Parts: sequence; C-alpha cells; structure tokens
Amino acid sequence: MFIKIGERINSSRPPIARALRSKDEAFIRKEARLQKEAGAAMLDINCAVDSKDEARDMEWLAGIVQKETGLPLSIDSPNPKAIEAGLRKHKGKALVNSVTVEKGRADSILPFVKKYNAQVIILTMDEKGMPATAGDRASLAERALKLAEGHHISKQDIYIDPLIRPISSEQKQAFEVIESVKLIKAKYGLKVICGLSNVSFGLPERSTLNSVFLAMMLGAGLDAAILDPTDKKIKAVLRASDALLAGDDFCKEYLKSYRSGELK
Amino acid sequence: MFIKIGERINSSRPPIARALRSKDEAFIRKEARLQKEAGAAMLDINCAVDSKDEARDMEWLAGIVQKETGLPLSIDSPNPKAIEAGLRKHKGKALVNSVTVEKGRADSILPFVKKYNAQVIILTMDEKGMPATAGDRASLAERALKLAEGHHISKQDIYIDPLIRPISSEQKQAFEVIESVKLIKAKYGLKVICGLSNVSFGLPERSTLNSVFLAMMLGAGLDAAILDPTDKKIKAVLRASDALLAGDDFCKEYLKSYRSGELK
Repeated sequence: MFIKIGERINSSRPPIARALRSKDEAFIRKEARLQKEAGAAMLDINCAVDSKDEARDMEWLAGIVQKETGLPLSIDSPNPKAIEAGLRKHKGKALVNSVTVEKGRADSILPFVKKYNAQVIILTMDEKGMPATAGDRASLAERALKLAEGHHISKQDIYIDPLIRPISSEQKQAFEVIESVKLIKAKYGLKVICGLSNVSFGLPERSTLNSVFLAMMLGAGLDAAILDPTDKKIKAVLRASDALLAGDDFCKEYLKSYRSGELK
Repeated sequence: MFIKIGERINSSRPPIARALRSKDEAFIRKEARLQKEAGAAMLDINCAVDSKDEARDMEWLAGIVQKETGLPLSIDSPNPKAIEAGLRKHKGKALVNSVTVEKGRADSILPFVKKYNAQVIILTMDEKGMPATAGDRASLAERALKLAEGHHISKQDIYIDPLIRPISSEQKQAFEVIESVKLIKAKYGLKVICGLSNVSFGLPERSTLNSVFLAMMLGAGLDAAILDPTDKKIKAVLRASDALLAGDDFCKEYLKSYRSGELK
C-alpha cells in the first residue's frame, strides 16, 4: 500500500514560518487536519528555515501535530539535535528524514533511528555529491543498506530517496530517477520514497508535472512520497491509482470522488 | 521516443460505422487530421464491426487516411484477408494489429508481416486464453519472440501487448500488466504497446483513469500506446511526460501548451 506523507508543515513556506515565529498553534493544527482529511497517512514536519532554536521548534511541532491528528510524523531536518528532539517527543513509530550515505552524517543520526525504533529515509548521496545515473543511485542504495545494517536497523525500516532534481535545470535526471526506482526495487528489494515537488521547480503549472511524475513513479514501483495531499491533481492521480493498483476495493472511493465532482 | 497511435478510426464507434456505410470520405479525413494535429505519429484503422466486406473497407480506409495525413497506419483486424488488403494498399512501414501466440493465428498473418516488411503487435494470449499474472505475460512474450523469429521477423519490428482488462471486472489485472511491462523489457528487451482505454471500461470519468494509467505505464517503460490523442487529460499527460522524459528539449512544447491554457 502506497504511503502518502503530507509536505505542507515546512518553514520554507512563509505562512508556516510566520506561525512558527508567533507559535500560532491553531494555524499549525489546521494545516495538519487539512492534510489528514485529504488522506495523508503521515505528516512531514520541517522547521529548518527561519528557526532560532530548531530543536525546540521541532519538539513543539511534533507535540501539537500528533495531538491534533494522531498520525505518525516524518521528522525532517539536517540537524541531528532537532531530529533527536522530535523523536523524543514523538509517540509511535516515526520516520527520520533524512541521512545520506556520507559516513559522518549517517553515524550522527542512525543511532537515534535505532534507539527510538524509527524508520529512516536514506538519500542516494555521498561525499562525491549527487548521483548522475540510475546505476549510480542503485549502487548508493546498496551502500545505504549496508550502512543501516551496520547500525542494526532492519531493511523494512529503510526508505531510499533517489533524489529528484528540477527538470528545468537537468532535464535527463527525471528519467534516471524513474529507472533507479525499478533497479533499486528489483536488485535490493528496498522501499523507495521521493519528495515530489522538486521535479517541477522553475516551471509553470507545477501541479501538472508533479502529478504526472507521481503516476510515472507509481508505475515504476514507488512506495511512498512526500507531497501536498490537498492538491487537486495529485488527489485525482492517487484516487485513480488506488483503483488501478487494487488498493480501492470495487473502486468505491473512486466512485465516491466521481460523484462529488473531484475528478473533473 | 514514445509512439502515440490514434485510436479514433474504429467502426465500434457509431459515427465511424456510419461514415463507413455511406463512404463519407470527408468525415474520415477529418478524424484522421484531428489526430495528426494532436500529435499522433501513427493512426489505427479498424472496420471489423459492422462491415459487409472488411477487406474492401480496410483498403478504402488505408487509402484515404494515408492520402490525408501521410502517416503510417496500424492495420487493425482479426481477419487475415482484411490485414492483407490493408497492407497491399499501405505506403511505407505499416503496423499489423494483431496476432496472438496461438500457432494457427500467427501462421496465418506473420507471413504477410514479413512479405510487406511491416511491424507487428503480438498479444500475450495463447490457446489457453488470457494470462493472469505478470510472469505469465512475460513467458508468452518470450514465445511471441520465438514465433516471430521463426518467420524471420526482426526483434525491433515486434511490439508485445500485455492485454489490459477492465479494472471494473478484474481489479488486480492493471497491476499485473504494469509489472509485466517491467519484466518483458528487463528480461527480453522487447518493445511494449497497449490499447489504453480498455482499462476503464464500465467506470465513469474514464479519461482520468486512462490518463493516470498511461502515466503509470510510461513509468514502467511503455514504448507505444493506442489512445485518443485529442483527449484533454491524455494530452496533458503526454505533454508533461515528454518534458519529464527529456523528449521535449528545454520543455519548449510544455511551455507552449501552458501559455495556450491546455494544461489547466
């Protein structure tokens, strides 16, 4: 079953940065509720941009978002302290977003993943930077698996993120990412996740590109994505793909969406 | 490069059946032109339903559709005589649609494919009927390859059709078809084609299901599809996927579609 992770509680979005600064709990709760109602199974929280005390902000976010929704969270930060603060506050099984295959970075965060029995997103990136081809991404996924196993993290708690770059700057990369999903799943049986909206950065009508790329990635075998579950075109793709991948018995939810005019 | 084949000139559509009966050349020309303008690289012609002399009708269709558009055709019939009539009239490299892996059927049509230097669609279906799993489809694709090679037809002239069934009656089959595309391409390096709209038969808002399924199949590696190139949602998926798969340099066509409001 495909996992939808809501991306909206991220301080790179100005309204979220404002709510964080003024500790506007009602606004954060509303953003959390909206995404849960749109079908998110998990919510990403990120306060890296514009935070004076990221660990405290992360703890604050984790508390109110879980209180409002009861959903598990994706604790999203480049900062090991903020990740640990989020994990300490979190109830149930969290997702740590993210580590890379760089040894230093992985070793500073993977012990928390183990300690708090969390899941983890590992980016296909090492000291040498971003990978160019599907094959490079698959090799990095294999290294990611070994690294996590070295910390006694089990395979089903790992998600590989093959790192999508904007097609506006590197047009061949979307194809390489799609091919890498097939390779990583076929060769290593690892789960694959992606942060969707990066692909369309710098282009107009991003919702079209994001939703079509999502469907293509689902066809390649994507297991989870961080996306805006309230976006109309993304909702239509997820509704249709649930029906197509037999995740929606007798197409009941699809028919309900049709009757309410959501598929137009 | 993905090949779009226009599906609209098919006598199972009542306006086409009427035009065939009254030999309404202007109507057929218009349907052909519309599809060419929408970007079809090839047009399917099918007059199996409601024809008194299918071979003659096929010859008539092939003549006027090629005269109007100059495009190669997919000669679509269960009837070897109609296929040969179409091939005889056809200029350039045609696509024969279709044979199955049943020996009798293949042996009655593959010699024409060779004689007229055409391409051919081979359905993953044998004497035992429709396949259930992705693995069954891949085994049938391997048999198809051997069968075609037995008639000295080269691999690059073969398209495998993994046979989509309506999710309204067999919901798990769309998933099996998507998986089969990956298997058939990875194991045998064969090209894969599909007739798109069957997947949504019996459900409302078919355009949503067809376009999302198309994007998923593109992600799995689909090489060609028989579809309605004038459908608004299908057009948007193809425009976005060309940009995403680097088939649209600098996203020029995508930006043009955006400016003309076609992606809304």
